[in-house]
Amino acid sequence: MVLKLTAVPAMASLLRAAAPGLFSWRGYCSRGLQGELSKGFVESLKAIVGSPHVSTAVAVREHHGQDESIHRCQPPDAVVWPQNVDQVSRLAALCYGQGVPIIPFGTGTGLEGGVCAVQGGVCINLTHMDRITELNTEDFSVVVEPGVTRKALNAHLRNSGLWFTVDPGADASICGMVATGASGTNSVRYGTIRDNVVNLEVVLPDGRLLHTAGQGRHFRKSAAGYNLTGLFVGSEGTLGLITSATLRLHPVPEATVAATCAFPSVQAAVDSTVQILQAAVPVARIEFLDDVTMDACNRHSKLSCAVAPTLFLEFHGSEQALAEQVQHTEAITQQNGASHFSWAKESEERNQLWAARHNAWYALLALSPGCKGYSTDVCVPISRLPEILVQTKEELKTSGLQGGIVGHVGDGNFHCILLVNPDDDEEHHRVRAFTKKLGRRALALHGTCTGEHGIGLGKRQLLQEEIGAVGMETMRQLKVMLDPRSLMNPGKVL
Amino acid sequence: MVLKLTAVPAMASLLRAAAPGLFSWRGYCSRGLQGELSKGFVESLKAIVGSPHVSTAVAVREHHGQDESIHRCQPPDAVVWPQNVDQVSRLAALCYGQGVPIIPFGTGTGLEGGVCAVQGGVCINLTHMDRITELNTEDFSVVVEPGVTRKALNAHLRNSGLWFTVDPGADASICGMVATGASGTNSVRYGTIRDNVVNLEVVLPDGRLLHTAGQGRHFRKSAAGYNLTGLFVGSEGTLGLITSATLRLHPVPEATVAATCAFPSVQAAVDSTVQILQAAVPVARIEFLDDVTMDACNRHSKLSCAVAPTLFLEFHGSEQALAEQVQHTEAITQQNGASHFSWAKESEERNQLWAARHNAWYALLALSPGCKGYSTDVCVPISRLPEILVQTKEELKTSGLQGGIVGHVGDGNFHCILLVNPDDDEEHHRVRAFTKKLGRRALALHGTCTGEHGIGLGKRQLLQEEIGAVGMETMRQLKVMLDPRSLMNPGKVL
Repeated sequence: MVLKLTAVPAMASLLRAAAPGLFSWRGYCSRGLQGELSKGFVESLKAIVGSPHVSTAVAVREHHGQDESIHRCQPPDAVVWPQNVDQVSRLAALCYGQGVPIIPFGTGTGLEGGVCAVQGGVCINLTHMDRITELNTEDFSVVVEPGVTRKALNAHLRNSGLWFTVDPGADASICGMVATGASGTNSVRYGTIRDNVVNLEVVLPDGRLLHTAGQGRHFRKSAAGYNLTGLFVGSEGTLGLITSATLRLHPVPEATVAATCAFPSVQAAVDSTVQILQAAVPVARIEFLDDVTMDACNRHSKLSCAVAPTLFLEFHGSEQALAEQVQHTEAITQQNGASHFSWAKESEERNQLWAARHNAWYALLALSPGCKGYSTDVCVPISRLPEILVQTKEELKTSGLQGGIVGHVGDGNFHCILLVNPDDDEEHHRVRAFTKKLGRRALALHGTCTGEHGIGLGKRQLLQEEIGAVGMETMRQLKVMLDPRSLMNPGKVL
Repeated sequence: MVLKLTAVPAMASLLRAAAPGLFSWRGYCSRGLQGELSKGFVESLKAIVGSPHVSTAVAVREHHGQDESIHRCQPPDAVVWPQNVDQVSRLAALCYGQGVPIIPFGTGTGLEGGVCAVQGGVCINLTHMDRITELNTEDFSVVVEPGVTRKALNAHLRNSGLWFTVDPGADASICGMVATGASGTNSVRYGTIRDNVVNLEVVLPDGRLLHTAGQGRHFRKSAAGYNLTGLFVGSEGTLGLITSATLRLHPVPEATVAATCAFPSVQAAVDSTVQILQAAVPVARIEFLDDVTMDACNRHSKLSCAVAPTLFLEFHGSEQALAEQVQHTEAITQQNGASHFSWAKESEERNQLWAARHNAWYALLALSPGCKGYSTDVCVPISRLPEILVQTKEELKTSGLQGGIVGHVGDGNFHCILLVNPDDDEEHHRVRAFTKKLGRRALALHGTCTGEHGIGLGKRQLLQEEIGAVGMETMRQLKVMLDPRSLMNPGKVL
């Protein structure tokens, strides 16, 4: 909340004494009484990155004050586009020294309000730093700047025989994905971003440069001291700014085949998923879409699939291995009453299928023009997935809310994508209530309130219930340790 | 170093004032002037765990003051065997409150002096807590107490269709493996312990109980707050006591086949490794043994393998998939001049082979009775493995040191197992010099000084060179945050 002070300085002092928390970062050297940054401070930003790379325009600030979720826009006071890590470091030191909040920004495709500038401050947009600085094909690793997106990276890798497997759907920036703890459709086979980050370069809040596994290092394993890399993956921009990531790559599979497969019920689709995993079929992707989502995808992506609970599957391997995997899977799905098993072997056909899956969010939004979307994100042990998915589907029907269900069911992770009229406060309230109830149901089943979207603004209460008092205290200690002035992306996670 | 004070209390005060670090933990309520724990303190230990579970006998203390390495024995002042987590918690609170160091102990099979009581204190032996408390076969997860060993766990899993893949050779306790960041022969396919820990129960130094991912939770992925689980994996007992671990299990492969394969040179063996990985053959194990080690294994384990640089390989999968993997691998090794390709399909034959590999340490020790062993542990990017291994082999020959090389070469990790006469100070010195030089060579190739044995006592200088000033400062902050009195396993890692 940006507090607009119109009173005289004496009154500001009075207010500050009464509510120190609200004022702690508002250095009068850097911010004027209008709640904006002082002219001198903006000049200091320009001195670091150059005038064209600083903006205080309302439209620019508003664009940077929100992501794709329903969290309301909370614009920063300025947006800057550094060109290199040295500039990021100097920006951080400047802001931290002056008590100004810092909000890292990638593609803005987050889903939990992670970029909302709840206390104003400076948004550091890292997308101009988009070079792929090193590719070690023999070692299956690559070093990228923070603004490289996953599609740009895979385009760059096209002729290398390698690919970057983490695919959350959106063409997110890699370091945004690292900060969020992203995963997506391929994680069931290749792991989440957590499993695919080898080393990070991080600008700490005070501007110091940390290489979490030592500068320039890339190895498959290490037992050298505390795991600093893991500490920053999923930290949602609250501990530092990620300015470079060393990633693990995987060999492009010899052959790939995809399929869709419709089921008579949600239960049958999810039971099949559990059985496929338990049979140790090394499925590369196994995605669930409910009838509502399938209907939306048919319209939006011009598919002609059955409007029924459906699995989208993909298999990777040699021709021989694929034949085995497919045979196993068909047997399991048929036992569960599957019909309309449709194979896509050609690359174009497969791409169309996965584009439709990735566009499920937009397909559902298109059902109700003018609405915004909110996505739940619980993840439970696989064995509990059938019961929670069936219950949730029933509850969604009776809630009066509009939306569909999609899920990375191979990981036990699924999303209710709920449509919300941005002007309807009562509907907002029902969405929040539905989300909290679903979160608590997942917690009761030994699951988590967030598999891949992060805590952000919306799940801080659920995090406390999930992790317990000592866990929360430890997380708070970590935050204080790395960000003692609480200026890095304030208000998120904790 | 246990300081034996024989002076009067006044002199002790003087000394303490002169060197406060040496005395910081020596509360006079708990330790007498002889450097031993006070009678009252020992009674307090007995009140928590029961008299039979506390020992101050010299032989017991000496057994707990060393591991399998050449680090000299530094016994604790007492050893206790708690029976449950509540007792661990009360022990920690007691010791921490009285300023007495705490050293966690598992099977004592570590290789970096991780259990040496460099400042005396209480050794907490966790091996009496050895129950497997929960097995979720449908979710591929298991919950174990800290004293369960990997062999006991796999014996328990025998009829479940699942297995625990991390295998460092020794029959180490699971939580010792977690604390060390262990990996071993299967990691190239199934990941290290880091990749296979889902949740930890940790007794913090002051006795509070932390569930790193929330109590009772087990899921395949999460983006809920900071990664506390990762922080404790590989923390070497310096941040808390691990009292329970939730582990990920894998399906037992349909079929398994192993092989040995001799090469004309170290270079040819390692080149084959790199090429097998680059061809994306999903090899389950790929281990290198040099000629010296093969000779020792032939004698010790009654094998009749060629005395030459050798790869031990294992493949997991369906019968069909195995045939493909084997065909690929044979082609690559033959191109590199391999001979004596010998397949072991039967379980008994395979077990004999891997027992020989696991006993390589003892086989080498047997070459020089009375000697102790020290193992280096560098890990480099795969592409740099041939050059460093060839160089190291040459250097070992010219060093005058006796020893062999074994390696988890699929991970870029290898060990020189060096034989040391425990009474020969000059030889000790040469071993340390060789180790440091090899560590620095690995660092220069973007590698790490330790792939799986940890920093312990022996690699603290190398860690500083590896991670840099800001990394070290961040690790020190973590230590202070969780262990402000610096009583948890003092002198290790930092």
